[in-house]
Order: sequence, then structure tokens, then C-alpha cells
Amino acid sequence: MTPEPVLGMRPLATAQALPQRVVSTAEVAALCGVPEALAVRRSGVHERRWLSGDETALSLGAQAARTAIARAGLTIRDVDVVLNASGSQLQPIPDGAALYARELGVRGAATYSLHGTCLSFLLAAQHAALLIHTRQARHVLIISSEAGSPGLNPQQPESTLLIGDGAAAVLLGPAARAGQGLHATRIETYPEGADHTRIRGGGTLLTPQNPAARASDFTFDMRGLQVLKLASRVVPGFLERLRPGLSRGLPGITHVIPHQASQAGLDLLRRYGWPEERVEVTLRTLGNVIAASLPLTLHQALTGGRLREGDTALLVGTGAGLIAGGMIWRL
Amino acid sequence: MTPEPVLGMRPLATAQALPQRVVSTAEVAALCGVPEALAVRRSGVHERRWLSGDETALSLGAQAARTAIARAGLTIRDVDVVLNASGSQLQPIPDGAALYARELGVRGAATYSLHGTCLSFLLAAQHAALLIHTRQARHVLIISSEAGSPGLNPQQPESTLLIGDGAAAVLLGPAARAGQGLHATRIETYPEGADHTRIRGGGTLLTPQNPAARASDFTFDMRGLQVLKLASRVVPGFLERLRPGLSRGLPGITHVIPHQASQAGLDLLRRYGWPEERVEVTLRTLGNVIAASLPLTLHQALTGGRLREGDTALLVGTGAGLIAGGMIWRL
Repeated sequence: MTPEPVLGMRPLATAQALPQRVVSTAEVAALCGVPEALAVRRSGVHERRWLSGDETALSLGAQAARTAIARAGLTIRDVDVVLNASGSQLQPIPDGAALYARELGVRGAATYSLHGTCLSFLLAAQHAALLIHTRQARHVLIISSEAGSPGLNPQQPESTLLIGDGAAAVLLGPAARAGQGLHATRIETYPEGADHTRIRGGGTLLTPQNPAARASDFTFDMRGLQVLKLASRVVPGFLERLRPGLSRGLPGITHVIPHQASQAGLDLLRRYGWPEERVEVTLRTLGNVIAASLPLTLHQALTGGRLREGDTALLVGTGAGLIAGGMIWRL
Repeated sequence: MTPEPVLGMRPLATAQALPQRVVSTAEVAALCGVPEALAVRRSGVHERRWLSGDETALSLGAQAARTAIARAGLTIRDVDVVLNASGSQLQPIPDGAALYARELGVRGAATYSLHGTCLSFLLAAQHAALLIHTRQARHVLIISSEAGSPGLNPQQPESTLLIGDGAAAVLLGPAARAGQGLHATRIETYPEGADHTRIRGGGTLLTPQNPAARASDFTFDMRGLQVLKLASRVVPGFLERLRPGLSRGLPGITHVIPHQASQAGLDLLRRYGWPEERVEVTLRTLGNVIAASLPLTLHQALTGGRLREGDTALLVGTGAGLIAGGMIWRL
């Protein structure tokens, strides 16, 4: 194995902000008209949070961001770049990052978004590492916040049972030690899966004003079995290209932070010989929180002591597209 | 002036793809119920292209991308990363980059989006330079494609007269000579302008299904005078931070590629002592093509011979947010 170039950076703080309302799988199963036991077994989700009252993806994301900044002992004036890394969009114009900037009292910092549906956090973390490593920025704040619940279609229990709302924020800064940072990042796209997970309506290809649009065009539509089939075909090769040996074990990896796509998606990981106790799971209590799943799961591994400074995390997952993404990150 | 670090990269090819239909300002003025002469004078746009027939932002973006790849003497298999850098969204899920990937026959390359409304291309070019400079990628393709016309509201002539549709693609690769690449990039956000340019509806803050949403919530809404006031207050300081002297001249710059926000926006540039013949203008024939304006204007400067290898371009503009962005790029 040739030595990998390292993009130096480290997490200064992480935080989460969850909706108040805990929604049991019994409640969602009733909404969808399916038996509860089957719903729990198929989805792997026991409960999830859904927005209520005046909560929005914006309010949760801003709350997580404020907590992360405070935990790092910094203020918003110390943040050079705010990256919005969310699968769901707050508003078409301006970019969601500007709306977070307003909530946080930004004046002058760079703010923009990186988007790759469920893997948006991973893309933003790579971008942040590039900025920090090349000294284009010192402190980069990433916000991943999702409000998927209003876009769910109870006619499709498969996705309605999976999706939860929530937000996480991660503040990144320069490496403090040699070797600290990203050792490898890889993203691969297999667009034959572009129709397997989608919300068709709402962009320029099918505008909200289009008289041909049906209500279901604006809701989440997932063909889970097709996603799984494609993922199980392309992911082993993807993992080997990320780091040789990764499809048969965890060479040099302390702990795995997978995207919490679904129970079936997490079950796939066993095929790679990854011991269950080294794979962090938040699906049972949070569901699939789209792009916020990766940073929420990272946050829980860090605050739970299962990942510490000096450890090496593997962040990995697939998202709509189909895209497969992974990152080897020494903390 | 301390020497700037350079992110080495160079453009291998640029291309544009424009809708077939040329729409005169007389036609748009009639649609909006305003006199033609006033419409031309106020907007600075004589004609623009609007989608017709089966044209979409997707078809135009893919066409521009294919042309750029062919001009560089490469194939899609040589492209490591495809970046979608568009202000308008094709479809909420999957990310638009995956849809371009399908059109282009991508298999395995990384594809994702960078978003900062009108400055999305600038953000993507910086990201590409970071990837290429740090050898994370060799060839990065950026697609900026816009279909703003279906979201226009003739009740608001100011924006309806401005917006044109179109696409551009830029293929970037490693620097061939020392000093070639990005010498400085700067993005600053002033979120007190977040409501000055917007499309409120369509994201999670106001979903297409929300019964409280009005048709006008899904159309472009601009307060041009407020944008201008804020821009004229913050841009001079922004320019000095990008490169000292830039608010009073063009130190070390061969040619300026401004975002084609509006005639009034272009008129502002005179205040900085930038000679008219060194500022590229496409507004008259293309209008404001949102994020595609910067790469379309770059393409026209390169193909028109006003920018050549070894020259230094200043890409600069403001976008909804309000964000100000600039990039000093030695070609």
C-alpha cells in the first residue's frame, strides 16, 4: 500500500438538535395501515423524531450550529466558512446556507452548500478538509439538517417508516498532530440507480406550477430492493478502491460510522466481515435522517466514547443517485 | 503584498449550449405590459434565450458537457469528478449531478453539486482547483445549466426582463506551468440581504403541498434596488480583501468576467475604475443566466480571444444571500 496523502484537519466540536416529538413505529405503522411488528422488523426503526410546532430544519440546524460553536469555545466570528450539507432544501433561493448565516449572525464569512443527498455531509467534510489543509480557511462549520417528514407518502410504508427529522453540526479546524485528518475519500456514481430513490417534482424538470404534476410527485419515492441490489453489486469494489481489504475486514479502522439508510442496508455491512460492535447504529431511535444521519451517528460515537482522538473512523454509505461514498478519517 | 499561494489548475476546454428560441425584449415587455424602450434601457437586455420544445436544463447541460469533453480530446471515462453548479435545481432527489451522470454515461466517477445561487460556478471552480491541486482528482467537469424562465412572474417585470436560460460546461485539469491556477478566492455573506432575491416556496420551509402557499411563492422575487444598495456598500471592502487595490483599479488583472446580474449591477463596476473594454459583457444577448452567466461569459471571452493562456482573469459577482464572490485566476 503506497502511503496516502493526508488532508490535515480535526473536529473541534460536534452537536445535535432533535425535534421534541418522538414518534413511535406503532404510530407510523397505523398511519400507513401496516402491522406494527412487521413495521419494526422491516424498517429496523423503533422510534424517530418528526418536526412539530414551529420547529423547522432551519431552527434545528441553527440550534445544532450554536451548540457546536459554543462547545469549541468559539464564536460565530471565528468561523470562516459555513457549509450547508443537507439532503432537503430549505428554500430554492437564496441558498440555505445564507438562511443559516442570518440565524447565526454571520457577517462576511463564506456560506454555501454541498449536495449529494444522503452523503452531503461526507462531501462537505472533504471540502472543509481541502480548505483547512491548503490554509484557505481555519474554522469550517458544517450543518446537516433535515425535515423529510412533510414529504412522506403514507401510501409508501417502506420510506415513511424509515425517515426521521433532525440536525447535526460539526466544527472543523486545523490538525494538531501529524497524520490527523482525511487519509482517503472516495465517491462513485452509478446512475443506473437514479430512479430508485427520488422526489421527482419541485425542480425545473417538473415545477410545482406544472399542471401535469400529481401530489405524489412531490413525495419521497423509494424502491428499496432495487437500491439494495445495485449497492450489493457495486459496494465491494468501491470499498477495495477506497482502501484495499475493506470489503473483507476493517484494516486500520477503529470504528465505522455508516449512513443509516435502512436495516437491510446495515445488514449488508456484515458481508464485509465488519464486527457488529465496531459499527455505530442510530437507526433504531432516529431512523434515516438523510444527510444528517452521518454527522448524528458520528456525534453519538464521539460523545459515547466509542471514537476518541487518535482513532480512525470510516464514514461510509450510499445515497440516491446511486452514489457510494466513503472517508477514512484519523481523529 | 505577501505572495499568494496558488492552487494549480487550468481550463482544458469550455463550451456552451443555448436554447434555440431567441426571445426579444419587445416580446417580454409585451408579456409584462411595459413599454419596450423602457424595458431595454432598464434591463440592459436586448434578447435572451428561453427553453422551448423538449429542451430542459438537463438536456442543455449535458450538451455543453459533451462538447467540452470532446474539445479537450477526452472521453467521459477520463473525467474523475462531475460537479453540478447551477442555481436552479433539476429535481429534489437525486442530486442533479446524478442526472447529468446518467446522460453522460458516467460509471463510477464522483458526481455532486455545489450551490451558492448565481455564484455556484465560482464555488465549483474553487473546489475543482482544491481537488486538482491536492491530486485528489485529475480532470473535473463543471456543468452550470439554468432553466429560470418557467419560474418567472410577469407581474414583476424587473426580474422577468432579466432572466435567460442556457448552459455552460468547463473542463479543468492540472496546471501546465508554475503560477497557473487560482491566486485568490473570496466569498463573503451579508445575510441582511437574504430576502432581497428569493423563491420562497418549494423547499421544506414552504413545501409545494402546503395549502398556505400561493402561486407567486414559487416564482422569482427580486428587490433590485435593495440588492444594489447592499452590494454598493459591501463590495468595495470585499474587493480590497480579495486583492488590495481592486476597488480602485485592476492590479495584475487582464480581463474581468463579472456575473451578469443586471445593467445596474454592471454599471456599478465603473466606480472601481475598471475600463469598460476590459469587462466582458454577455447581458445584452443572454440576459442573466443565473449560475451559468459566469462560465458563459468566461467561454465567450476565451473563444473571442479577449482572454488567453497566461492572462489573469477576475471572476466576480454577487448573488442571492447576499453573497459576494471573487476569484483571481491565471490561465
